[in-house]
Amino acid sequence: MTLNSRTSLLTGPRTLDWEQRAVPAPAAREVRVRVTRVGVCGSDVHYFSHGRIGPFVVNGPLVLGHEVSGVVDAVGEGVTHVRPGDRVALEPGVPCRRCGYCRAGAYNLCPDMAFMATPPVDGALSEYLNWPDDFVYPVPGSVSDDAAALLEPLAVGVWAARRGGVQPGDSVAVLGAGPVGCTTVMAARAAGATTVIAVDLEDFRLDVARRVGATHTFNARAGDALAFIRELGAARDGLPLSHGGVDVAFETAGSLPTTRLTLAAPKPGGVAVLVGLPPDPEVSLDIVSAASREVTLRGVFRYANCYPAAAQLVASGAADLDALVTHRFPFGQTPQAFEFADREKRTSMKVMIDVA
Amino acid sequence: MTLNSRTSLLTGPRTLDWEQRAVPAPAAREVRVRVTRVGVCGSDVHYFSHGRIGPFVVNGPLVLGHEVSGVVDAVGEGVTHVRPGDRVALEPGVPCRRCGYCRAGAYNLCPDMAFMATPPVDGALSEYLNWPDDFVYPVPGSVSDDAAALLEPLAVGVWAARRGGVQPGDSVAVLGAGPVGCTTVMAARAAGATTVIAVDLEDFRLDVARRVGATHTFNARAGDALAFIRELGAARDGLPLSHGGVDVAFETAGSLPTTRLTLAAPKPGGVAVLVGLPPDPEVSLDIVSAASREVTLRGVFRYANCYPAAAQLVASGAADLDALVTHRFPFGQTPQAFEFADREKRTSMKVMIDVA
Amino acid sequence: MTLNSRTSLLTGPRTLDWEQRAVPAPAAREVRVRVTRVGVCGSDVHYFSHGRIGPFVVNGPLVLGHEVSGVVDAVGEGVTHVRPGDRVALEPGVPCRRCGYCRAGAYNLCPDMAFMATPPVDGALSEYLNWPDDFVYPVPGSVSDDAAALLEPLAVGVWAARRGGVQPGDSVAVLGAGPVGCTTVMAARAAGATTVIAVDLEDFRLDVARRVGATHTFNARAGDALAFIRELGAARDGLPLSHGGVDVAFETAGSLPTTRLTLAAPKPGGVAVLVGLPPDPEVSLDIVSAASREVTLRGVFRYANCYPAAAQLVASGAADLDALVTHRFPFGQTPQAFEFADREKRTSMKVMIDVA
Amino acid sequence: MTLNSRTSLLTGPRTLDWEQRAVPAPAAREVRVRVTRVGVCGSDVHYFSHGRIGPFVVNGPLVLGHEVSGVVDAVGEGVTHVRPGDRVALEPGVPCRRCGYCRAGAYNLCPDMAFMATPPVDGALSEYLNWPDDFVYPVPGSVSDDAAALLEPLAVGVWAARRGGVQPGDSVAVLGAGPVGCTTVMAARAAGATTVIAVDLEDFRLDVARRVGATHTFNARAGDALAFIRELGAARDGLPLSHGGVDVAFETAGSLPTTRLTLAAPKPGGVAVLVGLPPDPEVSLDIVSAASREVTLRGVFRYANCYPAAAQLVASGAADLDALVTHRFPFGQTPQAFEFADREKRTSMKVMIDVA
Repeated sequence: MTLNSRTSLLTGPRTLDWEQRAVPAPAAREVRVRVTRVGVCGSDVHYFSHGRIGPFVVNGPLVLGHEVSGVVDAVGEGVTHVRPGDRVALEPGVPCRRCGYCRAGAYNLCPDMAFMATPPVDGALSEYLNWPDDFVYPVPGSVSDDAAALLEPLAVGVWAARRGGVQPGDSVAVLGAGPVGCTTVMAARAAGATTVIAVDLEDFRLDVARRVGATHTFNARAGDALAFIRELGAARDGLPLSHGGVDVAFETAGSLPTTRLTLAAPKPGGVAVLVGLPPDPEVSLDIVSAASREVTLRGVFRYANCYPAAAQLVASGAADLDALVTHRFPFGQTPQAFEFADREKRTSMKVMIDVA
Repeated sequence: MTLNSRTSLLTGPRTLDWEQRAVPAPAAREVRVRVTRVGVCGSDVHYFSHGRIGPFVVNGPLVLGHEVSGVVDAVGEGVTHVRPGDRVALEPGVPCRRCGYCRAGAYNLCPDMAFMATPPVDGALSEYLNWPDDFVYPVPGSVSDDAAALLEPLAVGVWAARRGGVQPGDSVAVLGAGPVGCTTVMAARAAGATTVIAVDLEDFRLDVARRVGATHTFNARAGDALAFIRELGAARDGLPLSHGGVDVAFETAGSLPTTRLTLAAPKPGGVAVLVGLPPDPEVSLDIVSAASREVTLRGVFRYANCYPAAAQLVASGAADLDALVTHRFPFGQTPQAFEFADREKRTSMKVMIDVA
Repeated sequence: MTLNSRTSLLTGPRTLDWEQRAVPAPAAREVRVRVTRVGVCGSDVHYFSHGRIGPFVVNGPLVLGHEVSGVVDAVGEGVTHVRPGDRVALEPGVPCRRCGYCRAGAYNLCPDMAFMATPPVDGALSEYLNWPDDFVYPVPGSVSDDAAALLEPLAVGVWAARRGGVQPGDSVAVLGAGPVGCTTVMAARAAGATTVIAVDLEDFRLDVARRVGATHTFNARAGDALAFIRELGAARDGLPLSHGGVDVAFETAGSLPTTRLTLAAPKPGGVAVLVGLPPDPEVSLDIVSAASREVTLRGVFRYANCYPAAAQLVASGAADLDALVTHRFPFGQTPQAFEFADREKRTSMKVMIDVA
Repeated sequence: MTLNSRTSLLTGPRTLDWEQRAVPAPAAREVRVRVTRVGVCGSDVHYFSHGRIGPFVVNGPLVLGHEVSGVVDAVGEGVTHVRPGDRVALEPGVPCRRCGYCRAGAYNLCPDMAFMATPPVDGALSEYLNWPDDFVYPVPGSVSDDAAALLEPLAVGVWAARRGGVQPGDSVAVLGAGPVGCTTVMAARAAGATTVIAVDLEDFRLDVARRVGATHTFNARAGDALAFIRELGAARDGLPLSHGGVDVAFETAGSLPTTRLTLAAPKPGGVAVLVGLPPDPEVSLDIVSAASREVTLRGVFRYANCYPAAAQLVASGAADLDALVTHRFPFGQTPQAFEFADREKRTSMKVMIDVA
């Protein structure tokens, strides 16, 4: 049975309109989901305010939102792992399942990936949507609707920690303490990091980072973050200051200075992970120093095979996603939610939209 | 200055005598340590009661004990990372540092390893001993003397988890909940395992396992542990029962049934780690089923490069080693401690000797 | 357009009958292939002569053959990487593409794998067949039809070498020098092994092994293969005899003695890979010695993501698959080919059927 | 017995003087070596002509040369693996063997590394020298004196290939076809790369690269190397041009354009390895594009645990180091050798000094 689904649509610069969309009965191996929560991500806000992110340009109406939880409304043929009424999280990217990347488990690099709210693929800010069953994850009762939606940024953190190879007993620096910085803190702690230094310009964010697992916080307005990291690392590891640093550094702020800092922060043999990206493609980096220390620099592009682990971390209490939600809007105030998120970047962490 | 050091010496079957030994001033790159605690390990008790472990035979007087903490008494030339008065843990195995295994970081496999309390190398049950500085680790004030001594079995657990490749969100089964079973539980949790099933025959041990991190316990007297593990795993992972199991299973009990269980417990693609060893070398195993599931079977022989991580886990609170100490004897009652540990295997976890 | 396809059908014990089957036009993302060569594998012969392999039982008519090359006859909608007339190799196992194993790149462990000539899935001994495009690989002109078919056993070897972690400069022992033993030799050499010891009971097979890359051969009738391997390894690596052995040992013969030998042959820290499986599930193994040497034991179940590398190795000349073909039968003599392959196991290497 | 050893000494800018040095009998675990060959490396020439490399400044007389082979003259106490008369290669860097990096197998990152011909540590341009036995490798008769000396740059190539994770069937680009470019080509081929593209500005070098294993060569004066690599990669792998590239790219030329090219050449998920370093520390890189493709960027600082593999590759014929030697000078003409090597960078590959 086809349902009407009230949908929030980006139709122009800073313009979100409403539309009724027909959502048909789910096809084979599809699940129809009644959406409960959609988290507002920085990329959603960027499309809302700038109409593009790098090469991805909004050329027509686009549904935003890719951090999404819901309840199963109906299931198509062949769906066996969930049934109507189950609470679920949706992984927002669906790859082709057939190319060499997909077959090798690197589906985040699939050339034919369809990712929610990345033009021209619609996102989740709608009452209902159909989604392939292999990217629908049941969540236990102990996981809130908010947390189920926020498995998405946690999956980014889990992937970042995996790319960084965080091991028990490691030291870690997280540059930037926004939502992804905080989920990276959670994921690094879950992987056994015992020293997690969060760096940001806002004390408010650093407080959240500490609440979700950072062992040290440093406001970069207050001094030299690199010196802090190197001294702490050298003392911790019993190494000369020249070899001081962390095992793994993560860039999550998307700025030039933090990108440079991320490359400088690891000790010899360490890893620098770029979760965020600087605004301009060309970055001047002290690559000689990094290469001489055999620091490995790894990019992160979304994630692959991280939802199950992310769900486990939340269900087990190892990751507290609810702590990230600072503001909440009903579905009907979606435009206000975006205006707010855009305006209050410095004072808000995660803005959540209650769709149902 | 040479010191007299009262020393407990295994001189015959079940016979521990006292001797005064001269401990000279530390040589270059050596540290003289005043011993504070020595934990009694199953291998110590085995030498005490049987005079041998496999190919290692006690042919002359032997000092037992290889789980050891102390205070730095004096340092030799070139020692810079500790000084007199520092509290330290000693890593009990010292490799040659020059062979291919040592150079490649696999020093636990060094053919010339000298390991405390493994004939003919003396152990630590003495008031003082000299030890190479690179195997002396300072510990912070938050780590108790007991815990510093027990970094040794925790290092085994950390190595086991590393060999098993435990990742955040993994499921784990630990067969046997003695001291090493419990440190394996700690290490698996620290590596991010969210489901940790401890199996033993004694509820007393399972209670400790739960206290230090097991999420599920199963008394194998009460039913079919393998069925329990497979059903739990299948439900958890949304797999058919034929594919149910854990990501990593650890044998820590050293028995034939648990060895067989360890190979059967992992799901396809999982890992079985043998931390303990069955009493007889030849073991009948269903290798066909394991190989068809691409289960990897890995042995553990001591550990390499695990003390720093173990120390981090204890200092950060991620591993609670103090919870393992169930009984305590003063140094002067070392013979009684060994008799007790031998007799009360089922009711004791870790017997600790307070040397000072 | 539907085509008639003459098909060889196993209809009873040692009974291969002919049947005309209709092969419809390829569906979307399917390729219709005119089969050129089918290699006869030991598993095909086993179904032919025993009607089962372990849990897989032939309960109805079954088409055998899973080593297959052909020419593209027609392509379905959405197929872009091949076109009619292209010469291709078919990867015989098609997984569900949606389960956790598939998404993580471990599709060989997919619970819903459909693998050619494994009951009840039909194999390739037919003039035409349709196959999903993602498991159809174009091969360059320099690769013969025989070699294209034999990418299948080479994929097994590539996977075995990958599971074994063979590195440049390594030493390797391959126990059994049949077709899979020989492809394992090729794959180990391609991965940089500089010492490759092939062991078999037949000089004829050892000659082939040497031709395709073995640097040493040893006929196990002539003496103690384990002593040979250990002495050679110790001398090569400058290690004491107690530490002598190879970096990686591969079992490819499927016998009890070679399974035991495979576990004994690696040096400390080495890897034992079970490509073949012993006839009975329970195997008595000296697991204590292996675990004390930290030997890792890994099973091999088919392969994942190996066809592209296998094709590269053949096209570049690094692997000479044509050297394996010792006997050849026209399609019409398929029954005779199977009788021959069953009878002449000791004198034949690979029996090839020229379907077209 | 102390020997007199004629020694070539860098005493000022472009000034090599002679000195007689006393070389005492080898101490315990030392080997006295009569030097046979010393290869002239770009770093030697740089010290000769510029008096420094980055932070390493020549402040006093310095013996150059770190690519060195010889014959054992005498052995100190405890040396068992070589004896007088044995032909050997010397690994030029000796670490502390005790720090955390050394114990973990990453001895190239040891803060106390003593590396030949890196101020203030003397190199090998002398008739005799003593060296620690664990960095002295016997070589078989099939390896020439030249090749034994050139194990050093081959060790760099082996380490680069290992850091790059080159696997059988991979595609590789090597930017720069000087001596290290060529040993990287050899090492990549030995690791199974089937497509190896060498890029340089000199056809002369590209010819050598092809002789030692490159499958494709490209003179960057002739066109757009990046377009060449991407098109070749896309066609080879059946990927869209946007995803075209190599599995692993290696920078060995030490220039800014090749550094940028190295980061651009890998396909999504690939690896860029910096073996050479650009002349200025700060490099402007398109890090956004690389990170979005999840390209991993790894530096190389010397090598660890590569000499045994390098020796295996040469002895087995997998690497032809003799092909690199283009010019040869007797020991007495060492100054002329350096002048020549400095002047004829574009027309020479490896200048070898025959010390004995």
